[in-house]
Amino acid sequence: MSIKITGTGSYIPANIEKNENFHNHEFLNSDGSIIKASNEVIVRKFKAITGIDERRYAKNHLNTSDLASFAAEKAIEDAKINREDLDYIIVAHNYGDVRHGSIQSDTVPSIASRVKHLLQIKTPNCKAYDLLFGCPGWVEGVIQANAFINAGIAKKCLVIGAETLSRITDPHDRDSMIYSDGAGAVIVEQTTEEGGVISHNSATYSLDEAHYLYFGESNNPELDDNRRYIKMYGRKIYEFALTNVPLAIKSCLENSGYKINDVKKILIHQANEKMDEAIVKRFYELYDMAMPEGIMPMTISKLGNSSVATVPTLYDQILKGELENQEINKGDVIIFASVGAGMNINAIVYKH
Amino acid sequence: MSIKITGTGSYIPANIEKNENFHNHEFLNSDGSIIKASNEVIVRKFKAITGIDERRYAKNHLNTSDLASFAAEKAIEDAKINREDLDYIIVAHNYGDVRHGSIQSDTVPSIASRVKHLLQIKTPNCKAYDLLFGCPGWVEGVIQANAFINAGIAKKCLVIGAETLSRITDPHDRDSMIYSDGAGAVIVEQTTEEGGVISHNSATYSLDEAHYLYFGESNNPELDDNRRYIKMYGRKIYEFALTNVPLAIKSCLENSGYKINDVKKILIHQANEKMDEAIVKRFYELYDMAMPEGIMPMTISKLGNSSVATVPTLYDQILKGELENQEINKGDVIIFASVGAGMNINAIVYKH
Repeated sequence: MSIKITGTGSYIPANIEKNENFHNHEFLNSDGSIIKASNEVIVRKFKAITGIDERRYAKNHLNTSDLASFAAEKAIEDAKINREDLDYIIVAHNYGDVRHGSIQSDTVPSIASRVKHLLQIKTPNCKAYDLLFGCPGWVEGVIQANAFINAGIAKKCLVIGAETLSRITDPHDRDSMIYSDGAGAVIVEQTTEEGGVISHNSATYSLDEAHYLYFGESNNPELDDNRRYIKMYGRKIYEFALTNVPLAIKSCLENSGYKINDVKKILIHQANEKMDEAIVKRFYELYDMAMPEGIMPMTISKLGNSSVATVPTLYDQILKGELENQEINKGDVIIFASVGAGMNINAIVYKH
Repeated sequence: MSIKITGTGSYIPANIEKNENFHNHEFLNSDGSIIKASNEVIVRKFKAITGIDERRYAKNHLNTSDLASFAAEKAIEDAKINREDLDYIIVAHNYGDVRHGSIQSDTVPSIASRVKHLLQIKTPNCKAYDLLFGCPGWVEGVIQANAFINAGIAKKCLVIGAETLSRITDPHDRDSMIYSDGAGAVIVEQTTEEGGVISHNSATYSLDEAHYLYFGESNNPELDDNRRYIKMYGRKIYEFALTNVPLAIKSCLENSGYKINDVKKILIHQANEKMDEAIVKRFYELYDMAMPEGIMPMTISKLGNSSVATVPTLYDQILKGELENQEINKGDVIIFASVGAGMNINAIVYKH
């Protein structure tokens, strides 16, 4: 028996938000002081570091649960399963449904229940729950589905990562340009094929690191409305990720029994292009190797950082032939890896 | 091997909110119309149906994650484990940290990461995540911990249910009197003792039922502030629960191999006294039996409905000898059961 991903789907929101759309923003430092650079310079620097040219925002009438259901429909179709055979719907997100124009997160009922409702799945045997684990939530959802199948309480699981970060960004914060909306979904099931999930590991660092990503006030102190937004200590996250993620991936690879040369692709959370490159370079340095060309497919330039949605969306796009010069073939050993709020890190070695 | 709860803890918030404190509220029907009864009559009727005399509210400076950490400290102490040996911290909640005076749910970092931070657990091997599954979240957390242990990826898990519903109630809605704050926690671990988790089942009903509990506007149409509150279709929930929960418990008991006469206690989510009594009565009717006296310990009169916190708090209070005429002894077969937003239902047959 193996536990494999038998179908994938993603949803790319329709609204393209280009970098130049931020040229009229009033960006401020986190202490509220003026940034001594023109917006054109700020945006150019931002692009140089993050690699982001544009990002996607969901249309106003759509919420995280809608995006999740669109991706899920495609994954179900791709896997050619009967949706009534699903044992679990696991939705990884971090902010729930945040309606356009609202500042409240709506999480009751759970996003997973809403998705199940939208998919019109009838059987009560399909349990629907939400998993909050920062950006690594979708990878963790696959690990949980894998555990449920191994424990004998599930055979088929729908695992979704969906987020509408555009609804919780501070327009006075340069970091707001990072965030994007999206959804990716997979069907994880028990099969008689070989391969699938070979090894995995997960970690939570929460001593000093717990509040590296947090909910904080606007950089604009004149906005005296008590409203909070997604905030990060970017420098600390960068250093944390560079120190810990390469070691986490290495440990996972060692547990898999595969060698570094077996690895065909590393699908890493699309958080920041320079950071991702530094992580994967350092990972290969642990083996005294240079990072192989094309090993780390990136979609961040066009899709930004859509949190939990980035890895499953990337995977789906490669399998569907939508990424130039990128492919994953039967028998390829790949690694899924993520890092984010918590701070959480995880990785899966997976044989396609 | 068995998987047992080896320690329990709960936190009862300090502020007692008595029914008479609601006498000065302006209660309205859900359509905004005036209720043709005095508040004294409204409150008396409320008490007759729900059994609630008073409820607990957290002090203003405390949030869900604080309550969770207080309960967790006691459970860790009770289980006499080294907290650094924990493999998972699973926190069931529904609204995250909602600061007093704020209308925003704060879920980044996850409540579980905050708890791990507050507990000052150092090892990154202890994964911390949040589980959203309506009021049955804590029971579901135990089921997930059980699965992780059975799958061989965990040995010791901390499972917490914590909520501050007082922060999201509509003061113009009679149902606001139901809700309460609290936290309960347990350590679930692999042991060589017999008993523990014998059987479990879970279900999600989300066709018509998905939005029986929802986030909605105030009953007062003059509050034109776009703010939303916890809302329910009480009658529909009552009928749903009465139809489905007794059958779910019966199915779980059948899977356990134990007989109806083996059951010593049923610890059911403290949602509404009349509803809980009707559920358990109907459960016994399925066996042509009358409900045995004392089978269903209740704390709702003093603690209200604290969502995910009710079942672990009840269990902790019985084990600590804090509930008059209630005890659970070694070898006793008990049932944990819950129903709530999603709509979700679950049950565990457990041998103490």
